[in-house]
Amino acid sequence: MEIPPVVIDRLPLYARALAGLEATGREVVSSQDLGYQLNVTPAQIRKDLSYFGRFGKQGRGYNVRRLLEELRSILGLNRQWRMALVGTGRLGRAILGYEGFGPQGFRIVETFDSDPEWVGKEINGLTIKDAVDLEEVLRVSPVDVGIVAVPAETAQTVIDRLVACGVQAILNYAPIAAHVPPSVHIKRIDPVLALQGMTYYLKAAAAPRK
Amino acid sequence: MEIPPVVIDRLPLYARALAGLEATGREVVSSQDLGYQLNVTPAQIRKDLSYFGRFGKQGRGYNVRRLLEELRSILGLNRQWRMALVGTGRLGRAILGYEGFGPQGFRIVETFDSDPEWVGKEINGLTIKDAVDLEEVLRVSPVDVGIVAVPAETAQTVIDRLVACGVQAILNYAPIAAHVPPSVHIKRIDPVLALQGMTYYLKAAAAPRK
Repeated sequence: MEIPPVVIDRLPLYARALAGLEATGREVVSSQDLGYQLNVTPAQIRKDLSYFGRFGKQGRGYNVRRLLEELRSILGLNRQWRMALVGTGRLGRAILGYEGFGPQGFRIVETFDSDPEWVGKEINGLTIKDAVDLEEVLRVSPVDVGIVAVPAETAQTVIDRLVACGVQAILNYAPIAAHVPPSVHIKRIDPVLALQGMTYYLKAAAAPRK
Repeated sequence: MEIPPVVIDRLPLYARALAGLEATGREVVSSQDLGYQLNVTPAQIRKDLSYFGRFGKQGRGYNVRRLLEELRSILGLNRQWRMALVGTGRLGRAILGYEGFGPQGFRIVETFDSDPEWVGKEINGLTIKDAVDLEEVLRVSPVDVGIVAVPAETAQTVIDRLVACGVQAILNYAPIAAHVPPSVHIKRIDPVLALQGMTYYLKAAAAPRK
């Protein structure tokens, strides 16, 4: 059965909320409570989870630990994922310092740049390698995910090279709508697009400015 | 007429692609060409743009400059937006250094932290103000957008305070599904959620690890 991508995108949110509940010792949660925490309707939650079997008993709520374990297994959250970062400019270095990856099983194990000033330097315990050697390095040290933090002009080339190395998931911070084969998954992180999606609504409300 | 939020979210992508075409001197573009650049079907593009009137002539393609101007006006991209950043930890400082905001009309004009070690310091020409004074500062220096880069525990409180100050759009980098009134728009930036949405697909493909 094909699960709609929008459903898959919501599952990590459910897992995160359940992990929070488990940490406070909560054993059972209703779709109402979960929905309130996540700004999702209870009906939506029940529908999303129904793709993966029957987790809750009518009127009894969900068993927090069991549902969390199931979601972790479905999403592959119970294992370690190896990531390569390409681009160690200002943005890349912020990504290297991001503390949210490790606790969730995501680890940057290789990092590349093409600037001779940065190649060979060490950041957060990782030596920056020459981007020229990407294929050679990833053959010996394969990764699951590629993080692209290079300028727009070179992003597609970097993504093509990562894909050619067998990388099947790309997290793209460059401001381009990159092309990948259908078997490769790509997500774009772009704060400006997020802002521009909101200014449409602000426009009407905003007072005219001098 | 109510425009579906998913359509609004795609418009900035169209505007960005058109701006790229305009920069290269291109005068006309087909929905096929635009679709290829953006990984969107031509039919989808025609449908999305049809919400805003008739931009193209059948079989003639879109006038790049006219469509771009129209989209800029629809999205409010032809003006400056004032933003306040709350939280100047590692992530907040990376956001302050992000060079993508300025060229798109988004300017961080106020920045706050509650750590006495940071309050009063200057970063990128902005003096970090005490988060205690948020309301007072924003009364004199109102902003359109609040950027939240504080830890999860304090994020909802910060968001509530921004909303009480009249801020109608929030860009949330904290790992919580925050609550805002229906009139307020909020977008979350979360690389871990993006990764977890991809590991579902990787799981099957990944080789077992030692």
